[in-house]
Amino acid sequence: MSLNPADDRFAETLRPELPEGTLRRPEPRHLEEPRGRWKGASQWLALPRTTDQVATIVRACHAASVPIVPYGGGTGLVGGQLAPDGPAPLLLSLERLAGVHEIYPEENALIAGAGTILADIQAAAEEADRLFPLSLASEGSARIGGLLATNAGGVNTLRYGNARDLTLGLEAVMADGSIWNGLSRLRKDNTGYDLRHLLIGSEGTLGIITAASLKLSPRPAATGTALLTVPSPEAALKLLSLARSQLAEGISAFELMHRTGFDFLSEKLPDIRQPWDTPPEWSVLIELGLARGLDPTEALETLFAEGFEAGHVSDGLIAQSAQQALDFWTLREHIPEANRRIGAISSHDISVPLGTIPEFIATAGPALEKIGAFRVNCFGHVGDGNLHYNVFPAAGQSRDDHAGNREAIKSCVHDIVHSLGGSVSAEHGVGRLKVGDLETYADPTKIAAMRAVKSALDPMGILNPGAVLRAR
Amino acid sequence: MSLNPADDRFAETLRPELPEGTLRRPEPRHLEEPRGRWKGASQWLALPRTTDQVATIVRACHAASVPIVPYGGGTGLVGGQLAPDGPAPLLLSLERLAGVHEIYPEENALIAGAGTILADIQAAAEEADRLFPLSLASEGSARIGGLLATNAGGVNTLRYGNARDLTLGLEAVMADGSIWNGLSRLRKDNTGYDLRHLLIGSEGTLGIITAASLKLSPRPAATGTALLTVPSPEAALKLLSLARSQLAEGISAFELMHRTGFDFLSEKLPDIRQPWDTPPEWSVLIELGLARGLDPTEALETLFAEGFEAGHVSDGLIAQSAQQALDFWTLREHIPEANRRIGAISSHDISVPLGTIPEFIATAGPALEKIGAFRVNCFGHVGDGNLHYNVFPAAGQSRDDHAGNREAIKSCVHDIVHSLGGSVSAEHGVGRLKVGDLETYADPTKIAAMRAVKSALDPMGILNPGAVLRAR
Repeated sequence: MSLNPADDRFAETLRPELPEGTLRRPEPRHLEEPRGRWKGASQWLALPRTTDQVATIVRACHAASVPIVPYGGGTGLVGGQLAPDGPAPLLLSLERLAGVHEIYPEENALIAGAGTILADIQAAAEEADRLFPLSLASEGSARIGGLLATNAGGVNTLRYGNARDLTLGLEAVMADGSIWNGLSRLRKDNTGYDLRHLLIGSEGTLGIITAASLKLSPRPAATGTALLTVPSPEAALKLLSLARSQLAEGISAFELMHRTGFDFLSEKLPDIRQPWDTPPEWSVLIELGLARGLDPTEALETLFAEGFEAGHVSDGLIAQSAQQALDFWTLREHIPEANRRIGAISSHDISVPLGTIPEFIATAGPALEKIGAFRVNCFGHVGDGNLHYNVFPAAGQSRDDHAGNREAIKSCVHDIVHSLGGSVSAEHGVGRLKVGDLETYADPTKIAAMRAVKSALDPMGILNPGAVLRAR
Repeated sequence: MSLNPADDRFAETLRPELPEGTLRRPEPRHLEEPRGRWKGASQWLALPRTTDQVATIVRACHAASVPIVPYGGGTGLVGGQLAPDGPAPLLLSLERLAGVHEIYPEENALIAGAGTILADIQAAAEEADRLFPLSLASEGSARIGGLLATNAGGVNTLRYGNARDLTLGLEAVMADGSIWNGLSRLRKDNTGYDLRHLLIGSEGTLGIITAASLKLSPRPAATGTALLTVPSPEAALKLLSLARSQLAEGISAFELMHRTGFDFLSEKLPDIRQPWDTPPEWSVLIELGLARGLDPTEALETLFAEGFEAGHVSDGLIAQSAQQALDFWTLREHIPEANRRIGAISSHDISVPLGTIPEFIATAGPALEKIGAFRVNCFGHVGDGNLHYNVFPAAGQSRDDHAGNREAIKSCVHDIVHSLGGSVSAEHGVGRLKVGDLETYADPTKIAAMRAVKSALDPMGILNPGAVLRAR
């Protein structure tokens, strides 16, 4: 399919159909992404204020075969939010479709525009004495449309599921500019194919999400936080299993961290206070949210005592105040920033079946050593089987020294993940970074079905071309 | 698309490719459905034992343009499991692909063939000290492939979600006979479009599910059951809200029942003992499943006391033994059978936004009275906003007296549901019964997307033609 650039001529054609100020030149931030791998090629940015304006824009692009890249908070880590090559796409930012439009506390539901920042949704839910449990490091700038388009994960997936599991309904503009009014608050609706789940995680390649109906949860009556030292990843899993047998769904988060992350924090963010002189080799951050009648501190003490007895945990701290709990989380949430400042050669967002995590860690390290000497920061949502396994140059070396090793490192890690039945993109998505990985590792029948669905719903190929599936 | 019947000539062509005994004449049960509305027209039944055999069959049908109707436990209520007209389809029963193949208690995952009966999956989970929470009246005969193809709901949806929410991965045969190996145990996997959620709820029209990877839950440490009298549906919702504020996720089921259901039980199933002389106008059945350290009986007593004080509940019973809890559930689970014996003129499986349930009930009754004198049995999963609103002839009349009113009754109920933003098929699916309703009420953009996806994944239209979407 041959596409045309969103150039000045196209902009002049579209301009009269939209309110003044809707079409602009992109700011530099719109053409960059957090890991600095690519620069976007877009010359024009659209900032619609309404779903109808989004539809007008998409209709015009459809008629002129002009590609569109939808833009949320710009926090994506796989390059889904910009197109570095091909005919320059129109960048379509949803940032003005922001705001929590309705909240139904009795129904545990909330309706928000695609441009609403995650932290604002969390705050609106809290104000209504409810919880919107999606939570991740970029929650202060990530927008819900992008979070849904990429099916974001984060730290509470263990208990509450991924972004898709928190979605009751969507409003979206399809490739031909038609609007799907699917802002349902229903918990049960079996009237046909689930278009909602098809759009969620499709990274803007099948439709543009303009609003969402989201599922809220009761706020746990009390929360508790502990930072515990574990002898090994295997012990961490045994501790998780013990915690589940004691607390069932009461575990909101269960994060694994390797010492390397704390070393990076000391080196690059020394103002963040660490609760030890020498960080432990492996530690877990546990967050509980319990029902009325249960005491989280008591529950964590019981878990520690039984875990210690069984050899699953050797030391640790139970937060004695909300501030201390926040401090523990500050450590965890700043590891990605410390990583960024160190500069990874290759970052991997992988998941494997829970039981195979120790095998993955035990295999990947020695396999990488055959390529060279690296520092590995392995951390993440171990309760979901999801690890961020990021490979850095040895101390004293730079990432540029290893540019030639990047592909070998990535293949080494991803091959092991694939052999264990895992995923090479657990929560960040495919974007432009992992299109080749998808072709290498995905089931051929699945890929064929994806291509067929893409052609069916976006026959011109104007929606985020080159993301998820190679542009044709 | 012109299709050819699965006739003797086709059977003779296919027979040599399959083990002896795979192709048979259907038994009468295969050509009937529970509500007796239709008779299936199939002349041939395939009983494959392996996924490869399913693929062989589908490939042959694809090559010869022969339609296939997939068959699970035969319990569907909307006619998705048989084709009464058109070229006689091959009936493809998955019953021999039965069995729990693997269970991973530490990962809370289980893998089962599509033909496995739900009760057998529940039992396997229980044996591993886990819970597979999908539960509905037909669990002793419904098979997991069909339950997933129709995204079954049931009594525990409030807490654990629909069938789709309990599914980690699928194996399926697509329309061209290719096999999708998607039996993942991963909790996070963002590598492309979610084919799993597209197939779930597509009622066999996009692919044939052959196996599933299912999500297990911890077993609650203790359960409690209460049968409470409430003054009105509105009071029931206020009681639910109070229960949620006290118990958060601890509420596993919250069912509403109208007196009519108990009257029907007395009339048609008098051996089922009822715990009162005169049944209450409205009652709720509440099931709690609580974590270690909490006492369900105490929790139900607190709920009753606070609910009574606030006027949300007027009387009731808290089960004092497992047997009594079972007795309460026996009442609830036999209402559909009592309904069947009375004989509904029109049955409706509807959902509305939770807050609009009282309005729905208050509006529908008087609207129906304008059509004629009926008895209405309104019961179901009120916590999900899902009611079974079934309309019966007045005492002394038969359903045949009202055959001419059926369409008017259905439209009356469905129009009210639609005006409240509800669904005309909450949990039973579309099948053949509600194809027209879907065309009437569904968003046109959604219907267009569904048709495009259907054409893309099943270009010959051989998979369950006439279910969900009108055959073309």
